[in-house]
Amino acid sequence: MRVSQLFTKTSKNAPADEVAKNAQLLTRAGYIYKVMAGVYAYTPLGLRVIENIKRIVREEMNAIGGQELIMTSLQPKEVWESTTRWSDDVVDVWFKTKLKDGTDIGLAWSHEEAIMTMMKQYVNSYKDLPINVYQFQTKLRNELRAKSGIMRGREFVMKDMYSLSTDAEQHEIFYQTTIEAYKRIYDRLGIGNDTYVTFASGGAFTKFSHEFQTICDAGEDIIYVNREKGIAVNEEVLNQETLDTLGVTRDELVETKSAEVGNIFNFGTEKSEQMGVHYTDENGAQVPVFLGSYGVGITRVMGVIAEKLSDDKGLVWPKEVAPFTVYLVSIGEAAAQQADELYETLKNKGIEVLYDDRDERPGAKFADAELLGIPYRITVSERNMANEKYEFTPRETGVSEVLTHTELLDKLG
Amino acid sequence: MRVSQLFTKTSKNAPADEVAKNAQLLTRAGYIYKVMAGVYAYTPLGLRVIENIKRIVREEMNAIGGQELIMTSLQPKEVWESTTRWSDDVVDVWFKTKLKDGTDIGLAWSHEEAIMTMMKQYVNSYKDLPINVYQFQTKLRNELRAKSGIMRGREFVMKDMYSLSTDAEQHEIFYQTTIEAYKRIYDRLGIGNDTYVTFASGGAFTKFSHEFQTICDAGEDIIYVNREKGIAVNEEVLNQETLDTLGVTRDELVETKSAEVGNIFNFGTEKSEQMGVHYTDENGAQVPVFLGSYGVGITRVMGVIAEKLSDDKGLVWPKEVAPFTVYLVSIGEAAAQQADELYETLKNKGIEVLYDDRDERPGAKFADAELLGIPYRITVSERNMANEKYEFTPRETGVSEVLTHTELLDKLG
Repeated sequence: MRVSQLFTKTSKNAPADEVAKNAQLLTRAGYIYKVMAGVYAYTPLGLRVIENIKRIVREEMNAIGGQELIMTSLQPKEVWESTTRWSDDVVDVWFKTKLKDGTDIGLAWSHEEAIMTMMKQYVNSYKDLPINVYQFQTKLRNELRAKSGIMRGREFVMKDMYSLSTDAEQHEIFYQTTIEAYKRIYDRLGIGNDTYVTFASGGAFTKFSHEFQTICDAGEDIIYVNREKGIAVNEEVLNQETLDTLGVTRDELVETKSAEVGNIFNFGTEKSEQMGVHYTDENGAQVPVFLGSYGVGITRVMGVIAEKLSDDKGLVWPKEVAPFTVYLVSIGEAAAQQADELYETLKNKGIEVLYDDRDERPGAKFADAELLGIPYRITVSERNMANEKYEFTPRETGVSEVLTHTELLDKLG
Repeated sequence: MRVSQLFTKTSKNAPADEVAKNAQLLTRAGYIYKVMAGVYAYTPLGLRVIENIKRIVREEMNAIGGQELIMTSLQPKEVWESTTRWSDDVVDVWFKTKLKDGTDIGLAWSHEEAIMTMMKQYVNSYKDLPINVYQFQTKLRNELRAKSGIMRGREFVMKDMYSLSTDAEQHEIFYQTTIEAYKRIYDRLGIGNDTYVTFASGGAFTKFSHEFQTICDAGEDIIYVNREKGIAVNEEVLNQETLDTLGVTRDELVETKSAEVGNIFNFGTEKSEQMGVHYTDENGAQVPVFLGSYGVGITRVMGVIAEKLSDDKGLVWPKEVAPFTVYLVSIGEAAAQQADELYETLKNKGIEVLYDDRDERPGAKFADAELLGIPYRITVSERNMANEKYEFTPRETGVSEVLTHTELLDKLG
């Protein structure tokens, strides 16, 4: 795509009402547009990032046998009353509205009850299990405050997966498989080194649940980390019993701020018993289905990446997440034709290129390349043209090399 | 994918509460699940169809320079008050809710006001125009009745595009380009022959707007069609003046039921004037932006295809829309290995195959292949195995051929 075709423009200054770094940077670079607090539209640039994150998550979920579907935002009251979660006293983030005839309906903030209602229709026998389904859903949550940019939205995109198993044993296999898949996801998203499987409170059915927490100054959580042992504990379960269970002492743990980028949760048979979701086992007995749920906040992760992988010049997207791989800059009219040719060559090789074809001074183009955080800048200038060479500058290092055409293509290959 | 891995199951009988053929067929085949009237979840099979329709629409929108983005469902009241469309007396399909602090918010049923508010930030000069942006958005509409299955939902997926132009002339170029793109879309969706650019009432700014109406018994509209001249008129503008304008007599038009599968609308400068969206022209004057909007009901189109391209045995998806291209059936244990091999061969060639690997009688497998509406059935049986041949049966004709391995791959090539 050509920069001249983008309707967004970069801005030197952050909006006065944004306090979160992720929102400041993403707004300045033209990735997001604030509709109201905690509610952001995503421009063509921003949507490309979201779709890249979704692609990574989708590939890893499909690889462990997840099946993608899409549930609904509108939710019937009765379904959630059956588990007591309709009440605003139990769930304080509901948005609710009414049909024309006055019927109460909710706007989905999660989908456990919705999935279980649907699965009643499809699950009969132990032969039907396990089932692992996931979706990318726009969730609505009526948050009291929303000052963390896209890290805590009132409207946000989430990948939520649900596993239905015959029993704890079948559940545990998928649960562990998902932990491994999540690790691959955060590695590919470029935040794997700072992301920890964190022990948190487990609810009624298990001692612990597992959160994926990324060390992040802008995070809302506090965790206690031992980097060498790869252990992290949420402050809510930091007690002697937990330390003993994990074989770690308090002194070995360092307190740090973190952002929850994923969670996996064991519901056991609680929902099935409440909602009457049973299967017939090998002996003809009716047994409640074992439920797990597994979330990744897609837009939140985008915010965390923006917070962590950025510097005073702007964003620094990892290659798999970046909206484009190359930011192509032409300097001077004489270089335009060569830049046009390189643009076509790279596109034909399947490389995503954002081509700054504007009549702007080089400094402005370089500043935009840095603010936007595109992994590689390629500069075509009259000076290097004479030698048929190109300047190649990775965003991460900022160190330029002058390369031949062949060397350049090798770097991107 | 293997049929044994699908959690959905086909059903001989339609749900008692579904009156629309599209909902009956799609539910029986396991494409959709009804959450409440007008609100459907889409299973892995159904989501594949939606994604295929979106892919076709996306390709055609990108080809005419559309840029994809994603707006929000949550909408501030003030934005819509500025054009009088917040009022339930003006727009009777709003779902509304409140933030914790009591602030009214709406759930988007359309996005003209949202786009124009956002574009205020980006449009300054005539050089910034034209801008053509589109999204695939889940719209919520509080319909009084919802008995048409996925053809009229309270929650549904829509492609909506918005064009911002300097003036009527620039607008008209994009408007006509979009009409041609829409024709290509409906051709690729398999309903082009029965879809008409239909003259409808134009509102305040133009004599006519244009709807894309598909002849369909389950449709809610009445249009008057002349097939030879390729002319159609919505009953709301069927008068002598319209007939004179179009150069057609009443006798030449045949009344028929139809479903609106797309619309394109010229808002002129009305919204810009109400909302203060101006640009600076070449002479430095402030000029209101010219707005067009262009919709395609993605889930509605899926419903129309189900209504029209189906028979007493089930669905008959067009190839580009079908969730899978091939339904592979193995008959008898001895054929299983050959079927497994063919499954791998076809997958490696990038062909989407649904492989019925179940231990079921042939008649049940054939019936499911037909109900699901997969374009090509391939049957691997002991009888044909002896000659290293395969039975190939297009869903549309139902006429089987016995083919060699090479002939089979040629057919699918």
